Amino acid sequence: MRLLWQRSGMLQKLMLQRKHYRRWLATTTASARGNGQEEKYNARYKWRKPECKAEMLLYGVCWTGGLGLAYFLLSQRGESEAKLDDEALARLWHITVRKDLPTYKAEQVEQHNAPDKRIWVTFGLGVYDVTEFAENHPGGDKIMMAAGSAIDPFWAIYQQHNTLEVLELLESFRIGNLEGVTVANTDEELGSPWAQEPKRHALLKPASKRPFNAEPPIGLLAEKFYTPNELFYVRNHLPVPVLAPEEYELEIDAGGGEQKEPLTLTLAQIKALPKHTVTAAIMCGGNRRSEMTSIKAVKGLSWGAGAVGNAKWSGARLCDLLREQGVQPNESMHVIFEGADLDPTSHPYGASIPLSKALDPRGDVILAYEMNDNPLTRDHGYPIRVIVPGTVGARNVKWLTRIVVADHESDSHWQQNDYKGFSPSTDWDTVDFGKADAIQAMPVTSAICTPLPGERVKVNPQDGYITVRGYAWSGGGRKILRVDLTGDAGQTWHVAELEQEDAPDGRHYGWSLWTARLPITKDQQEQEQVEIWAKAVDSAYNVQPEKFEHIWNLRGVLANAYHKVKVKLA
Amino acid sequence: MRLLWQRSGMLQKLMLQRKHYRRWLATTTASARGNGQEEKYNARYKWRKPECKAEMLLYGVCWTGGLGLAYFLLSQRGESEAKLDDEALARLWHITVRKDLPTYKAEQVEQHNAPDKRIWVTFGLGVYDVTEFAENHPGGDKIMMAAGSAIDPFWAIYQQHNTLEVLELLESFRIGNLEGVTVANTDEELGSPWAQEPKRHALLKPASKRPFNAEPPIGLLAEKFYTPNELFYVRNHLPVPVLAPEEYELEIDAGGGEQKEPLTLTLAQIKALPKHTVTAAIMCGGNRRSEMTSIKAVKGLSWGAGAVGNAKWSGARLCDLLREQGVQPNESMHVIFEGADLDPTSHPYGASIPLSKALDPRGDVILAYEMNDNPLTRDHGYPIRVIVPGTVGARNVKWLTRIVVADHESDSHWQQNDYKGFSPSTDWDTVDFGKADAIQAMPVTSAICTPLPGERVKVNPQDGYITVRGYAWSGGGRKILRVDLTGDAGQTWHVAELEQEDAPDGRHYGWSLWTARLPITKDQQEQEQVEIWAKAVDSAYNVQPEKFEHIWNLRGVLANAYHKVKVKLA
Repeated sequence: MRLLWQRSGMLQKLMLQRKHYRRWLATTTASARGNGQEEKYNARYKWRKPECKAEMLLYGVCWTGGLGLAYFLLSQRGESEAKLDDEALARLWHITVRKDLPTYKAEQVEQHNAPDKRIWVTFGLGVYDVTEFAENHPGGDKIMMAAGSAIDPFWAIYQQHNTLEVLELLESFRIGNLEGVTVANTDEELGSPWAQEPKRHALLKPASKRPFNAEPPIGLLAEKFYTPNELFYVRNHLPVPVLAPEEYELEIDAGGGEQKEPLTLTLAQIKALPKHTVTAAIMCGGNRRSEMTSIKAVKGLSWGAGAVGNAKWSGARLCDLLREQGVQPNESMHVIFEGADLDPTSHPYGASIPLSKALDPRGDVILAYEMNDNPLTRDHGYPIRVIVPGTVGARNVKWLTRIVVADHESDSHWQQNDYKGFSPSTDWDTVDFGKADAIQAMPVTSAICTPLPGERVKVNPQDGYITVRGYAWSGGGRKILRVDLTGDAGQTWHVAELEQEDAPDGRHYGWSLWTARLPITKDQQEQEQVEIWAKAVDSAYNVQPEKFEHIWNLRGVLANAYHKVKVKLA
Repeated sequence: MRLLWQRSGMLQKLMLQRKHYRRWLATTTASARGNGQEEKYNARYKWRKPECKAEMLLYGVCWTGGLGLAYFLLSQRGESEAKLDDEALARLWHITVRKDLPTYKAEQVEQHNAPDKRIWVTFGLGVYDVTEFAENHPGGDKIMMAAGSAIDPFWAIYQQHNTLEVLELLESFRIGNLEGVTVANTDEELGSPWAQEPKRHALLKPASKRPFNAEPPIGLLAEKFYTPNELFYVRNHLPVPVLAPEEYELEIDAGGGEQKEPLTLTLAQIKALPKHTVTAAIMCGGNRRSEMTSIKAVKGLSWGAGAVGNAKWSGARLCDLLREQGVQPNESMHVIFEGADLDPTSHPYGASIPLSKALDPRGDVILAYEMNDNPLTRDHGYPIRVIVPGTVGARNVKWLTRIVVADHESDSHWQQNDYKGFSPSTDWDTVDFGKADAIQAMPVTSAICTPLPGERVKVNPQDGYITVRGYAWSGGGRKILRVDLTGDAGQTWHVAELEQEDAPDGRHYGWSLWTARLPITKDQQEQEQVEIWAKAVDSAYNVQPEKFEHIWNLRGVLANAYHKVKVKLA
């Protein structure tokens, strides 16, 4: 009987999914045709509304886990991955009753919601005691929001939990089974916050799918000074919100003791302000993390060197807007940005920058509605995102809905407990996010885009050279002065030709592309290989560190050591 | 007869020197007593005036070189140095007639003053053909000012020529002897531009005496957050000028198409402007050069890690003055500073900064008359120097007499052909100073001040730690976020405690002192030694490079690799 009910639920789900998939395909294909007009959206904040949440629950609560059936279904899924067997099994643990453990009622679990009463959480029908772990939770205090209740809705958003390692860790905390539970299916599509994700270019290689995080092939990256919008890396922390342009509003709370009413601007009003254009590269704090990981594991998306792009952004200058609102320079103030992308507790994505950056005309902070002369795409913050040139991507808040001038930084997870650097010897037992500074300006970096690692490169028979190409960038508006290449571990260095905008230093926010001709020695020819190193120097004559060992940090951010690429010679 | 004349000249010289020395001692001792009042100077620009030059010549032309006598005199000099024998002999070459070479008249030499006519110069009674060398002259075009004439007055100023290597190089260009010459004695004191150098603290260790360049013992440097004025490193490029406060004038030429009359300000007028105080470390571009030299020789003064100091500077804000003069922001303009210190052609020391830095209220550029609440000392620019916080020392022009807003950088030697960085593979044959950017903001650095290299350090018997102390600083107002120490070549890192001003980032111009407790392993105890490494991280999360090999440059500037100090353990 129970099995039958499960099957009928599954069928219902599959049919709904298929129907929804067709609808989704139709809309995204239409928008991908891109006739230059803005897409029309029927819903705004759809999944935020209570009825939407009920819908999620309704469709989600369709089946209870049964080992055999689930395994069957999993093995049928298209998304086959390495380690499927181990991971697939691990994904069943929380929907499997462990007969060696006691069973608890939801009311019992609820009482364990603080360290002194122990911290219990549930996932599926598993009950877990995470008291000791909570302190060291990489996501910080967020875990306490689930204390005494279910972590399922959080994990649906923060899909970085969906790894064998995390599932194993969780199961090690298991203390029991939850009585009479129906398990939400995390694969549920229709009505879920992920239901309205935009369609992405096939060449974007995802580091994670939910939230969507993807980079273009690095071999294409140095092809164009302005990165094509559809190949620009995407770094989403939450589901992409659906914002209707005609309903869009930006609230600006400029503070001030006089209890000033916040300013509210429509999209049309923002577009009516003087248009300011700035070329700026945006780089993820975790760009090149995969190279750091190769030294020692870190927590975070495994980005290659493609979590960066360079674009021409246009919009209204924030400094003008703030000054019109009477905001005066103040060294201890901050400007907080909030996005329309919400976490399961309805808290928006948020970040902040110092007021001094926001007020500085040379800071070139803009409320951007155009990227390379086209309207922003949904993945890049349609209709408005803030561009904070020279500053780590995480502060360039997308789907911007609110700006607050405040005497403190954003209290968001991403400002307080993420995007910070630590000493290589700081581990998850000793880390104190409160003691490190939020990353703002990024350090100098560079990467070799072509040739690719392992590529077979033809040496020019006339002169014995190979051609190497890549990008370089530094934060804070610091211009790239030089990129040096070596093929012999630094015994000789060869200076690259730079392609860069003629922007003044301190305001040089775009990246520099570079091309170098690297001489190949007879030895290298005979060995049929060479390891190329690249290092950039910025206008403060800061230079990249040589290797990752001494800049390693547990979050894998700021991975700016020399880029080293081994290639084969033909 | 000739010898007798020489002897009488020598006697006359020695007597004059003694008399002058007594006078000099009396005045400088009085000023060193420092009762807080400004020193009174009788002469202004004394050695610039024509009568002064005549004086120089009169006293200078006292003896013609005779090998035996000169050698006798040299061997009597108190300034004994290593390599005295070789160097002492080399110093006689230019006052020795080479019988294997022809003799030329001054008029003949004069005709060889351009590459197409060959470039000849004289030094003492030597005639040299420097045509091929001129292109690669480390001092750039300056050499052409001596084309067809004597280099003696230049070398009297640029005493970096006074090395065995340079003398040997010069002698290799020798083509003849100059007819009927009297040789100026470069040791001449009275009337020379060096006659009125101030008295310096005995603890300042000179890297060169003329011009005076000296640093304090590094062991003292981290003792005080504000470096005592008398121990603050001194970096002079030319003789110290003598400026009378009541006669001092600063000319400000704000440019402008309307042929505006330049503004002239007296010292009293500058002091009457609103007083602005900023804590700023000033660092020489060549600080820590001696560590870079240990990898491979470079040209430049052999600075230790003490060519830096931290002070509280007070004066008038340049941005206010410029704005009052109607100067508007312009990204392609520069502000040129000229000092009262003159080279032998009466060209002043000069440097420039971008106008954007000068106009930025957060740039905190001031016309300083106080250093740590006391009037500037003569060595530090009395009565006025410009303080350009966050910017290499060379742009903080001392004895400031002129400010020009211009559409180009300063054309001084020090802006154009010095204080620039190059790739490690750039040598004196390939260097093109025109292609590199003048150093402005400095990169992040740090140094271990105690213990000193080779020092025997007692390990705390209770906890097995040693205490390490030093400084860290970054240019461009970037705050130091962290200093990491390791005693095991980077296997474990220990974060230092910072002592720093509570200044906002971007405007954090002072240095940070730091103290770390470094654990000593049993292995290190047994080997009775440990090598300590320090590295700093600034607010753009830039980090020092690991070693000097890959940042080596022919001028030995920007020497900011990890500081590594080996100590003995007790």
